[in-house]
Amino acid sequence: MNNRPLELMIPGPVPVSPEVLDAMGQPVRQHYGPEWLPFYRQFIARLQQLFGTTGSVYPIPASGSGGLEAMLGTLIGTDGTAGIIVNGFFGNRLLNIARAHTPHVEVLQAPYERPADPADVRAWLRQRRVSVLAVVHSDTSTGVLNPVEEIAAAARAEGAALVVDAVSSLGGTPVLTDAWGLAAVSTASQKCLESPPGLAPVAVTKLGWEIIDSQRAPSRGWYLNLRSWRQYEQEWANHPYPVTLPSNNIVALDRALDRIFAEGLEARFERHRRAAAQLREGLERLGFKPFADRRWASPTITVAYPPPGIDAGALIETLRVQHRIAVAGGLEHLAGRVIRIGHLGNQATPEPIRRVLGALEASLRQGVPSSP
Amino acid sequence: MNNRPLELMIPGPVPVSPEVLDAMGQPVRQHYGPEWLPFYRQFIARLQQLFGTTGSVYPIPASGSGGLEAMLGTLIGTDGTAGIIVNGFFGNRLLNIARAHTPHVEVLQAPYERPADPADVRAWLRQRRVSVLAVVHSDTSTGVLNPVEEIAAAARAEGAALVVDAVSSLGGTPVLTDAWGLAAVSTASQKCLESPPGLAPVAVTKLGWEIIDSQRAPSRGWYLNLRSWRQYEQEWANHPYPVTLPSNNIVALDRALDRIFAEGLEARFERHRRAAAQLREGLERLGFKPFADRRWASPTITVAYPPPGIDAGALIETLRVQHRIAVAGGLEHLAGRVIRIGHLGNQATPEPIRRVLGALEASLRQGVPSSP
Repeated sequence: MNNRPLELMIPGPVPVSPEVLDAMGQPVRQHYGPEWLPFYRQFIARLQQLFGTTGSVYPIPASGSGGLEAMLGTLIGTDGTAGIIVNGFFGNRLLNIARAHTPHVEVLQAPYERPADPADVRAWLRQRRVSVLAVVHSDTSTGVLNPVEEIAAAARAEGAALVVDAVSSLGGTPVLTDAWGLAAVSTASQKCLESPPGLAPVAVTKLGWEIIDSQRAPSRGWYLNLRSWRQYEQEWANHPYPVTLPSNNIVALDRALDRIFAEGLEARFERHRRAAAQLREGLERLGFKPFADRRWASPTITVAYPPPGIDAGALIETLRVQHRIAVAGGLEHLAGRVIRIGHLGNQATPEPIRRVLGALEASLRQGVPSSP
Repeated sequence: MNNRPLELMIPGPVPVSPEVLDAMGQPVRQHYGPEWLPFYRQFIARLQQLFGTTGSVYPIPASGSGGLEAMLGTLIGTDGTAGIIVNGFFGNRLLNIARAHTPHVEVLQAPYERPADPADVRAWLRQRRVSVLAVVHSDTSTGVLNPVEEIAAAARAEGAALVVDAVSSLGGTPVLTDAWGLAAVSTASQKCLESPPGLAPVAVTKLGWEIIDSQRAPSRGWYLNLRSWRQYEQEWANHPYPVTLPSNNIVALDRALDRIFAEGLEARFERHRRAAAQLREGLERLGFKPFADRRWASPTITVAYPPPGIDAGALIETLRVQHRIAVAGGLEHLAGRVIRIGHLGNQATPEPIRRVLGALEASLRQGVPSSP
């Protein structure tokens, strides 16, 4: 039993369907030229549809953080004033990236237990000269969903544009890039998009380009600079991107898009909501205490305290060793205190949720070491 | 016939063996934790062996240019003086990356037809305060191999450290990172390493870290900053890298390393030399004029002018449409004037070289449009 492959119920990467893995293992293709470009253009058009934008989309070969840096670094430049909302580990990730680009960074530190309040954001912005504000949509360290649409409206009212880390939300809960007036949105292939890791699609709207083009001090950097991507798109007809694209990863993500559009976005969002509710109810029944209140719990990730006296690390080990299921531990001050379970993409169906609940129940029954 | 898959004889990506593709299509793995880390540590140890270094190696999820930027950006910082040797398109790529990081960039522009001369490099450095010098080992735009070992010695004599773009050389011709006294070396998975694109392994030696740690103005940027990679390596025992690693791409590259070490590095280098000679002789016999003199022709890539009157673009199209073989066109001022043929990794065996020569011969015989 112990040699079975681990079932991934971590907050990404998620298990990938056989047809997407089959695409991943196809022969490497020429990533430019007349046989690739019609496919590539259609692939980008489908990503635009997924993001809900008529703007640019670039499938940057990188982890999700690489896409975040392309988005945030390019939008704030080397001398812009960035505002970063921090209510989780990945808010701090945005902060680290922003500080690596400009000395002018303002931090709205909010409690990890709650989403950022749009009224607070607006009041906070009123006191500051922030042109670009960044927020994590679904922070996988807390399982809290920030209200991006309302934060964008609050930011707009104070003359700031919002850029969004949608790494663990896009494809699992609505992200309406153009309709919400966002400047840019970044995601990753291995979460709700049900694909292997390696690609970070980044969307930039008309508003985003206006900000970029009005900067006095453009971003440093070349690979993660969206200007490089636009330049090749405009100037290199046969190879409209600056670098070698990983064709296998792109073909795999395209196959995953087939599945996503066949299911339909609304059906997907509802599936994620149901999976979240199923997991939450099961956890509460077993004596776990979810970290996020149900009013703002993310539909793609649940973070929970084990029942009193149960050691989170020992529980995670028991699940791995005895049940061959991988769940994740806490980050920052939550390390050792919580478990984190993904219900993203392929994880968000009744069977995997039942399996993880069953394994948790069996582990509690057989006894795992108590917390010290 | 026209629906056959294209055989890739471009200067990367190269065709990938069935066992490496099989590894690429395996289920996604958890990229951290107790089941991944022993494999990962061995993978890194094997990359160190390949680079010939006891220094750090990071498998950055990016195209080759992303790895180049991590290497060059981190080594020069925001205020260092970089020297860039330019004798090809990819020398200009290094230049663009360097200029995106520091305003102090010195350019040693050399003829594209010849390798950089170490004595010239030394005389040039003597006039300048360059601390980090960068060079492309094998420039795939020209097929010229720069003498990295001798350039490193010349640089050292003038107090400069060399960083090397080994994207199309590592695994196909000797690169002795430590023995040659290099500060850092960067490569990519899809060339002589016979793997799909998506990973850019970067090596940093003790000398490289000394330079990085003595900077007054460290590099901006986070994802492509080697300091981020070192920080997580030192601080996050369970997840010793800052981002999600693409496990499929890493498992595939590891499988390719099995093949590389089974063949043996010396045998590989000899195979590449023989493939280069076979292709060159065949091209000359057909009336092509190789761009690089045989004294300094790269063993991994050949750039050649077609016989007088033959249009390079039409020839490339004929190969693609009639023979289902992809070769590449020229870059910069060589666009439309040359063809570029890769003999990297799996391409560097007698059969593919014979196929491309046969297709060229048949195309010339049947007649392709002449150049205007």
